[in-house]
Amino acid sequence: MKKQHQISVKAFKAEGFIEKYQRLVNGTVLPYQYSVLNDKAPNTEKSYVIKNFINAGRSINGDTNHDGFYGMVFQDSDAAKWIEASAYSLSNYPDKELEKTVDELIDIISNAQESDGYLNTYYTIKDKKKRWTNLLEGHELYCSGHMMEAACAYYETTGKDKLLNVMLKNAEHIYKVFITDGHEGYPGHPEVELALLKLYRTTGNKHCLELAKHFINIRGVDSDYYKKEKEKRSWTVWGNNAEDNNYQQSGMPVREMSDAVGHAVRAVYLYTGMADLASLTGDKELFSACRRLWESITQRQMYITGGIGSTVIGESFSVDYDLPNDTAYAETCASIGLMFFASRMLENDINGEYADVMEQAFYNTVLAGMQLDGKRFFYVNPLEVIPGISGVSPTHRHNLSVRPKWYACACCPPNVARLISSIAMYAYGENSNTAFCHMFASGKVSFENGMKIHCKTSYPYGFRVTYEIQNGGKLAIRIPHWSKTFTLSVNKKSSNVKPIKGYIYLDVSDGDIVELLLDDMPRFVYASSKVPELTGRTALCRGPLVYCFEGVDNNGDVLSLSLKRNGRVTVSDADDFLNGAIKLRVEAVYTQPTNKLYLDTPPVEKPCTAIAVPYYTWGNRGENQMRVWMNEIT
Amino acid sequence: MKKQHQISVKAFKAEGFIEKYQRLVNGTVLPYQYSVLNDKAPNTEKSYVIKNFINAGRSINGDTNHDGFYGMVFQDSDAAKWIEASAYSLSNYPDKELEKTVDELIDIISNAQESDGYLNTYYTIKDKKKRWTNLLEGHELYCSGHMMEAACAYYETTGKDKLLNVMLKNAEHIYKVFITDGHEGYPGHPEVELALLKLYRTTGNKHCLELAKHFINIRGVDSDYYKKEKEKRSWTVWGNNAEDNNYQQSGMPVREMSDAVGHAVRAVYLYTGMADLASLTGDKELFSACRRLWESITQRQMYITGGIGSTVIGESFSVDYDLPNDTAYAETCASIGLMFFASRMLENDINGEYADVMEQAFYNTVLAGMQLDGKRFFYVNPLEVIPGISGVSPTHRHNLSVRPKWYACACCPPNVARLISSIAMYAYGENSNTAFCHMFASGKVSFENGMKIHCKTSYPYGFRVTYEIQNGGKLAIRIPHWSKTFTLSVNKKSSNVKPIKGYIYLDVSDGDIVELLLDDMPRFVYASSKVPELTGRTALCRGPLVYCFEGVDNNGDVLSLSLKRNGRVTVSDADDFLNGAIKLRVEAVYTQPTNKLYLDTPPVEKPCTAIAVPYYTWGNRGENQMRVWMNEIT
Repeated sequence: MKKQHQISVKAFKAEGFIEKYQRLVNGTVLPYQYSVLNDKAPNTEKSYVIKNFINAGRSINGDTNHDGFYGMVFQDSDAAKWIEASAYSLSNYPDKELEKTVDELIDIISNAQESDGYLNTYYTIKDKKKRWTNLLEGHELYCSGHMMEAACAYYETTGKDKLLNVMLKNAEHIYKVFITDGHEGYPGHPEVELALLKLYRTTGNKHCLELAKHFINIRGVDSDYYKKEKEKRSWTVWGNNAEDNNYQQSGMPVREMSDAVGHAVRAVYLYTGMADLASLTGDKELFSACRRLWESITQRQMYITGGIGSTVIGESFSVDYDLPNDTAYAETCASIGLMFFASRMLENDINGEYADVMEQAFYNTVLAGMQLDGKRFFYVNPLEVIPGISGVSPTHRHNLSVRPKWYACACCPPNVARLISSIAMYAYGENSNTAFCHMFASGKVSFENGMKIHCKTSYPYGFRVTYEIQNGGKLAIRIPHWSKTFTLSVNKKSSNVKPIKGYIYLDVSDGDIVELLLDDMPRFVYASSKVPELTGRTALCRGPLVYCFEGVDNNGDVLSLSLKRNGRVTVSDADDFLNGAIKLRVEAVYTQPTNKLYLDTPPVEKPCTAIAVPYYTWGNRGENQMRVWMNEIT
Repeated sequence: MKKQHQISVKAFKAEGFIEKYQRLVNGTVLPYQYSVLNDKAPNTEKSYVIKNFINAGRSINGDTNHDGFYGMVFQDSDAAKWIEASAYSLSNYPDKELEKTVDELIDIISNAQESDGYLNTYYTIKDKKKRWTNLLEGHELYCSGHMMEAACAYYETTGKDKLLNVMLKNAEHIYKVFITDGHEGYPGHPEVELALLKLYRTTGNKHCLELAKHFINIRGVDSDYYKKEKEKRSWTVWGNNAEDNNYQQSGMPVREMSDAVGHAVRAVYLYTGMADLASLTGDKELFSACRRLWESITQRQMYITGGIGSTVIGESFSVDYDLPNDTAYAETCASIGLMFFASRMLENDINGEYADVMEQAFYNTVLAGMQLDGKRFFYVNPLEVIPGISGVSPTHRHNLSVRPKWYACACCPPNVARLISSIAMYAYGENSNTAFCHMFASGKVSFENGMKIHCKTSYPYGFRVTYEIQNGGKLAIRIPHWSKTFTLSVNKKSSNVKPIKGYIYLDVSDGDIVELLLDDMPRFVYASSKVPELTGRTALCRGPLVYCFEGVDNNGDVLSLSLKRNGRVTVSDADDFLNGAIKLRVEAVYTQPTNKLYLDTPPVEKPCTAIAVPYYTWGNRGENQMRVWMNEIT
């Protein structure tokens, strides 16, 4: 079987659930985020990102009469992610006004590029001499990477190559510095690797491939690099520990890695680049490392919500089976990166397991990252929130119960926007003869081989998926791991084709109608007792959705609820409630909380019905308790 | 009823369980700790505390040819606590050798006192100009306080007043600085308040009482004091946040306090001083504050083990009901301080609730602070330890599974020693006509009014307590809250006297034999569902002992065990196992842990017997899992 690759965003027109989200991004999220980037949104964290580019352009032209740089060392990347999201959104919904805004921003950015191709406002404005002296914290390669991704996306949507040329020039500059001139070191925050490979895929530029290979291959070979770098320089951004090889994934060459460690976003961005390089070059050793890292994450360190990086300390992976609910970090960006990684793994190996995780991360942590109205965002995605403790206790300060409007470190909001607007790339794949359906995204897809499908479904709340075929070919449809049973028919004729590694493969012809019926039964999920935090607990799921219990539906008190083992679960009708989300009603018992801290008598339990809502909808109705993993009574 | 006060350590000769511990302190702990303080114990953290006193003495005599100061700014206090513990131990077991060692150390200490009465090796050796400039972090008053306590204890045991006079001179010096000369501020780490009151009780010196009152009364009146102090000085010990009024209990005058906040040891040392002052002066407003703080601790912030201060961040109280098991801090010293506080509350109000908590802290957290052989110590006392996570995960680094030999910050080991050797003060109390039995400590007690009792019991493993009376009077015996039933007889004649606020009061005569039979039934304890961490869990207790489950008794895996609600519990015979501790066997189920992280099927449970050991004995048999709060199945 030939490997498959992502489809172009342009090849998909969403309908249903995904369309609602993409229209939200287009109509609300992008304009709102642009107003933030432009410092025109009231009562939000200051961004200044566009002003930084303007000021850098003025600096280059010798005009230093401006108010300098503001924000994080990686502030530029917020603009990049916004352009990338806008590019995808323009593919979905052409919009002359938005395109004009992007063009203007690209003009501003191109003016901020120095004559040698260097592009980073922090250094251009503050101190050019600092360039490339602090790969550990400096984020120059990270910002370049994001702008490369934006350039590819905008070029693919519009055919306009101004930003693409800016970034090719920037890539050449980086090539000169790190390859021609032999500057030592590798990116403190991986990102440029995966971006260079995108640029290579978009333009065929060999230097981009070579540079990505270089950064991946030399990583960790000199595990003391950052230490030496720190000794040589006299400045620091945050005083990061240069010897924390776990945090920055620099402890060993990448082909030797087995455990996912350190800063979770850095980790999955790196692994994405590694997996992409492995698929582009057929590097089996590199793929093996990716597979080990994949297992380390998904078999021992991943929340049921697809959240990863369980500790706030270093925004990091912790150790195997350390998955606290209430102090979870589980950064939105980390789950987005996990989707990237999963998608690249699928290009190496068509295995439903990767798509399962991709879907798990998307429908739970990634969507939870944004308020239903598109105006507020979670950076941190705990699985339990108790007002009075969450956000207040010294160990729970990061666990907010309501989404803020913006963050000083604003990596997550534009990341959600670009992910949602480019969901086509994750939902569908193709090779020259096969169309792959990884996720059940309703809408119309055109494949490069001429085949078209129209996927109709009310997934993730409906479990009937219909594919209307135009121009036949091979069709591969994923059967999710959670669907204990499924029925398949082609033109109403039942098919008993068996899944191979999580996919059924069909030869379909023009006009065929393929109907898949997945398992719609709510299910109780249990964790291995190796996870201390989850013993005695169960989580309620249906399809790809993890459910949670909020105080607002349960008399303000979810702590006192225990679910009945194998209890009856009733699926409600969809209503306007939470944008059409479907509640579940579950047999449970309620224990009156006592004022006495400790008692010698077992709690008095009364039967009751507990109400669950999809995890991604939590925190949309004010501050209240929320719990995913519930106590169980037998 | 006239208030009662602690008995003198000299008035008690322990037998049984307590005697074993006191002999361990005498024979092993004190010699071992002295070798540490003298830097003669192999492979332990360096102490240098005695060397510091020697060097300070040389500095005072103008001899600067020494190797300076080493250790924490409060290093002196380790010697003080060791002297205090030795003093009590000498009361229990006269020992010429030990007494000589203490005398020599007192000579060394007295040589380190400056002519104006100042005593602190850190400042005398390093920089006299820093004196009193950093009350926030400087610990001068803290070290003085501990040495005052040592002086009182050694004087009471031996009648020798050299150290007492040193510390009276030191108190006069402090009086001059803070009262006569009007130096602003109050102790960053409370301790001197309770110590000055001890010195006042021992000597009748009014300046000591006045000074203690002063420090208690001005605390928090200027809540910006530390901020102003920090602005004035150019040095820092750790860079403590001068504006963290919670941490240093400086946010409001003490009479306004309601919530126990901040560094737990500082908090309970302060509250002890407040309660002592309230009982000495009859200050009802101050006692009301103490009562509110007591309730804040014991009704909302205390572990079942009597551990307090649930978070490592600032070694602090967290917020109400935030009582994590695995990341618990629950410092040994904080539970010792809670015993101090409870004992002083008893002097204000004879209420069994105070003695209940005193006992709970002693038999669980305080005793757990020391290895059974007296040679290793816990600073941190978690209620769950899982090797692979505990001590390793970034949020669990402080949760060790085996006791270290010593600590760079060595406050806990000598604190345990002084507590155990002075347990008489907590176990028994008296006023002019009544003997109070707060704890069931076997041994012989002589009260000031001439009454003597001989308490015979194998408590905490036996629940029959016999009191043989010499010279009659009033006898008050606490009935613990956990004893649902009890029987009482005087000279074999059953008595049906009812407890008043947790105590039964008897008029006894010479030769009487009082027999009390407490409830010996193991019991399952539950927490209020307001504690998120403890929903669905139960803890097994018997008498004052909290039990825990260790891997070594349970096939290495306690995470997979759930206890059966109201399951049968069998009490084993005492054996040599863990110094005579008694195991409990409990009906339970065992779930085979799965390699899959998440499963759609309920765990398969097999009936089994789980074995529990007293919490204080955990961690004595190598690294293994430990859990107090177990999952329960109904």
